[in-house]
Amino acid sequence: MDTRTVGILGGGQLGRMLVEAANRLNVKTIILDAPNSPAKQITNTTDHVDGSFANKDDIEALASKCDVLTVEIEHVDVNALKEIQAKFPKLEIYPTPETIGLIQDKYIQKQHLVANKMPVVHSIMVENSKDSLLNAGIALGYPYVLKSRTLAYDGRGNYVVKSSDSIDEALEFLKDRPLYAEKWAPFTKELSVMIIRSLDGRVFSYPIVETIHQNNICHLCFIPARINDSVQHKAKLMAENAIKSFPGCGIFGVEMFLLEDNSIVINEIAPRPHNSGHYTINACVVSQFEAHLRAILDLPMPKNFTSLSTNTTNAIMLNLLGDIEEKDKELKICERALETPGASVYLYGKESKPNRKVGHINIVCSCMDDCLKRLEYITGKTNDPIKLSVAALLDAEDSKKPVVGIIMGSDSDLPVMSAACKILEQFDVPFEVTIVSAHRTPHRMSKYATEAASRGIKVIIAGAGGAAHLPGMVAAMTPLPVVGVPVKGSTLDGVDSLHSIVQMPRGVPVATVAINNSTNAAILAVRMLGIQNYDYLKKMDDFLNKQEEEVLEKAVKLEKIGYEKYLNSK
Amino acid sequence: MDTRTVGILGGGQLGRMLVEAANRLNVKTIILDAPNSPAKQITNTTDHVDGSFANKDDIEALASKCDVLTVEIEHVDVNALKEIQAKFPKLEIYPTPETIGLIQDKYIQKQHLVANKMPVVHSIMVENSKDSLLNAGIALGYPYVLKSRTLAYDGRGNYVVKSSDSIDEALEFLKDRPLYAEKWAPFTKELSVMIIRSLDGRVFSYPIVETIHQNNICHLCFIPARINDSVQHKAKLMAENAIKSFPGCGIFGVEMFLLEDNSIVINEIAPRPHNSGHYTINACVVSQFEAHLRAILDLPMPKNFTSLSTNTTNAIMLNLLGDIEEKDKELKICERALETPGASVYLYGKESKPNRKVGHINIVCSCMDDCLKRLEYITGKTNDPIKLSVAALLDAEDSKKPVVGIIMGSDSDLPVMSAACKILEQFDVPFEVTIVSAHRTPHRMSKYATEAASRGIKVIIAGAGGAAHLPGMVAAMTPLPVVGVPVKGSTLDGVDSLHSIVQMPRGVPVATVAINNSTNAAILAVRMLGIQNYDYLKKMDDFLNKQEEEVLEKAVKLEKIGYEKYLNSK
Repeated sequence: MDTRTVGILGGGQLGRMLVEAANRLNVKTIILDAPNSPAKQITNTTDHVDGSFANKDDIEALASKCDVLTVEIEHVDVNALKEIQAKFPKLEIYPTPETIGLIQDKYIQKQHLVANKMPVVHSIMVENSKDSLLNAGIALGYPYVLKSRTLAYDGRGNYVVKSSDSIDEALEFLKDRPLYAEKWAPFTKELSVMIIRSLDGRVFSYPIVETIHQNNICHLCFIPARINDSVQHKAKLMAENAIKSFPGCGIFGVEMFLLEDNSIVINEIAPRPHNSGHYTINACVVSQFEAHLRAILDLPMPKNFTSLSTNTTNAIMLNLLGDIEEKDKELKICERALETPGASVYLYGKESKPNRKVGHINIVCSCMDDCLKRLEYITGKTNDPIKLSVAALLDAEDSKKPVVGIIMGSDSDLPVMSAACKILEQFDVPFEVTIVSAHRTPHRMSKYATEAASRGIKVIIAGAGGAAHLPGMVAAMTPLPVVGVPVKGSTLDGVDSLHSIVQMPRGVPVATVAINNSTNAAILAVRMLGIQNYDYLKKMDDFLNKQEEEVLEKAVKLEKIGYEKYLNSK
Repeated sequence: MDTRTVGILGGGQLGRMLVEAANRLNVKTIILDAPNSPAKQITNTTDHVDGSFANKDDIEALASKCDVLTVEIEHVDVNALKEIQAKFPKLEIYPTPETIGLIQDKYIQKQHLVANKMPVVHSIMVENSKDSLLNAGIALGYPYVLKSRTLAYDGRGNYVVKSSDSIDEALEFLKDRPLYAEKWAPFTKELSVMIIRSLDGRVFSYPIVETIHQNNICHLCFIPARINDSVQHKAKLMAENAIKSFPGCGIFGVEMFLLEDNSIVINEIAPRPHNSGHYTINACVVSQFEAHLRAILDLPMPKNFTSLSTNTTNAIMLNLLGDIEEKDKELKICERALETPGASVYLYGKESKPNRKVGHINIVCSCMDDCLKRLEYITGKTNDPIKLSVAALLDAEDSKKPVVGIIMGSDSDLPVMSAACKILEQFDVPFEVTIVSAHRTPHRMSKYATEAASRGIKVIIAGAGGAAHLPGMVAAMTPLPVVGVPVKGSTLDGVDSLHSIVQMPRGVPVATVAINNSTNAAILAVRMLGIQNYDYLKKMDDFLNKQEEEVLEKAVKLEKIGYEKYLNSK
């Protein structure tokens, strides 16, 4: 796709996944890192450089062999990069040394963000002395977070100063490192978003991710973040604005805190692929890794290429850490993931060591509840008997889980409602059927209505006669579409039921069909399911054609044998 | 994931994609093929064997270094494999030498299929002589196909014998090759399906693919095949039964012909990943390559792991052949693919030569029409002005393409119907609104109804008063769900419209809402879209909560200020 060679400073898992994306596009990559590092394992060239991305000579050895230089880690020697840039003027370096310099020292990063009017947690520079840290306590209050300005990742380099008594310990923990102190941020969620910046300065964001940390290491990501739309939108705009302030191009990870008042502050920024973007391999049109390559090689980046693959996708990313008790024991989790529909396993070719990131698992489903169930199965959180039922559920799920719920006010409605069952059987739509009375079982009705969506029901068909409150009451307690069937009673010819079902007040609709016509209710449900499942749409088309043929056949017969014989032949 | 080493006979693109899947699972692979072959490029080991997969010594050199042996091509030396199996009894070979033997000679393959009662095109063995071919002409009729029994792929090894006059040419074309003759099969479509067989004999099929060949080389694949469900089902069962007849495990490609009478015959079988399965990388939960690894390593294969990633996915695979005029010119197609949302590029690390398979492009969308539009853009089939508009369309598409169509019988209905527009704006649902009269513009109505689904409309809202035929007539000509709004006329209070809309005959439902209540029609449409798009479901939940809050606030006010003040305060 591009004849230029890309050199990567760092050959860990991020570099490895960059190389995988480059391999697909025939882009040659060479790596600077220790021999046999994960990224080197999957590109077969003798051009790799063994050494350190923090060593100038090694960087120069790599630079001399490539056209574009990039990083999988920001802790590189920026001055060396600048000298190398001067020495190799044709070499392109992305992210630019300037951007890396603005980001790798977290205090400078923070000052840069403040200068660009981005909201951040208040912080002050401190010295490695007890006096300075006591003053910080006075300025920021306790607890506050003492942070190393450089070389900090996965929480290494942070220390929570709970009171003036813990200052000595903090100094011991972070001794000799350049420090700053940050006010305690009582966040309710940690958010993250990958932003891609093109060479011409456009920015595109991936969905907002909710990250869950354990022992300061990213443990889980939920995609999209389980926050409301307006907060998502706010987070997206903020992150995009932040990235617009950095020169150059490439992928960036923006970590944010959601505070108690629903405001958002930026925590920190990584100028490279990021752990919280691994889900993009399965859930997005283009992965963060390919996006980064496209950016630094100035390849096309169409609109929406960062969006989720379909509107219906939810994803969870689970980091796989080396087991603390037994080497490779974490592979048990992988085995369970391979047993789980919708889960994909990524191993990095690293030796298993306690708490080392050795891989990750992406789980993609159409709803978050299903993702969570699968996660529970994969992590073995469920006890054995339940585990089995979850496994069974996973297995049976796609084919048998009811998507239409048929309910009726009384068993006397069943003769009318059974026609709906027949239609759903005919269209192979999994459904459930039961009795729920608005007036005789009001609590059961509430429970049914409120839980239906989370159980996977997509459409509810409710039949009722007389006062016929069931369809409307259920519609009031679920966001699902409810189809109402007016059942004809012994008086009023069903007009009572019809008006009671159809004349719902503004705000809560019931899709009403003809009196006693549960056939049409089921057909309507199939048409609705066709919005998601093209098969149903096709089947509905076939059904309409078949109906037409049947009538045409009758027409031919009538024309052929005449009306009298036709009447007699019926 | 597995500590065993997998040796692969053949290092072309199929081997390369197998290696990619193995890399993700930390499964070590070593390759036997020419130096720097595509598969070798992406796994960095000195254990690869340079040589030929048809040479026994080379195969043995590979076998001595691995635990499991597999193939990316069936033209390997089966006897050598059998000897090697005897020499290395612990070595597992999948597909088994026996299966490869049954398949690599296409006449033996055919006899095996016949013996297993699988429908195939009738064929007879012939000799390389004019007499024998003349006899074949008498037995099979002209035209018939003369085929090489071995080493035939991409049409090389086939010759169509049009009449007895072309026999000499046929013999010249296929001289010295072992031959058989096959009756001409007047197929209407070529189908293909990937089937995975586990070590314990279970088979799982991927979706049925429709393949389009150009110059005997696979050019395009459409997924799922554009044939009706029952034919798909028949093809699936037939292919599964065929694969059940071969011992061993692994992935198989089954090529079939769909004949004019809708019957299906098996054309041929490949015991390995197949060109028609490349789409699985993007469109399926697990790719054909990872599936093959799982099969031969006896890793878990959960139910449905071969299905399309979501119910809504359609895909097209475009093979990328080396340009016949200019080296690497085919990369222009790749560039256009990178510009196209939903398209992914795979290049194989092969030197570009005329008509050589150098890569492929997968296009994944929610409907086939969109896939086709994108394909046209990628292949540059459209002229420049149209091309531009397609590009613009692709760009704008996801955000602006209307998914709800609001129609009404007359502009006098607009004051009532405009409430629906407001609701859809509030929920960020792209919609279109126009006038379509059943009685004054019947042809426009037919056109609107029949084309709506293919234009991407998901729900139609139709408002009408009086005789109010529009909703029902539109419902009769589309498989989409139609919501009907009875508009109140100057007489009868709207009951006329209501009854006309709701009392549809069995077979064609209209989701009827209350008289003049187009608000509810739009809310119902949003609920229906929530079946596909979880965001809408969430928004609808928020909407219901907000409605509840508003009423609760009013209740508090009424309780606080009393009914008289409340009445006056309104």
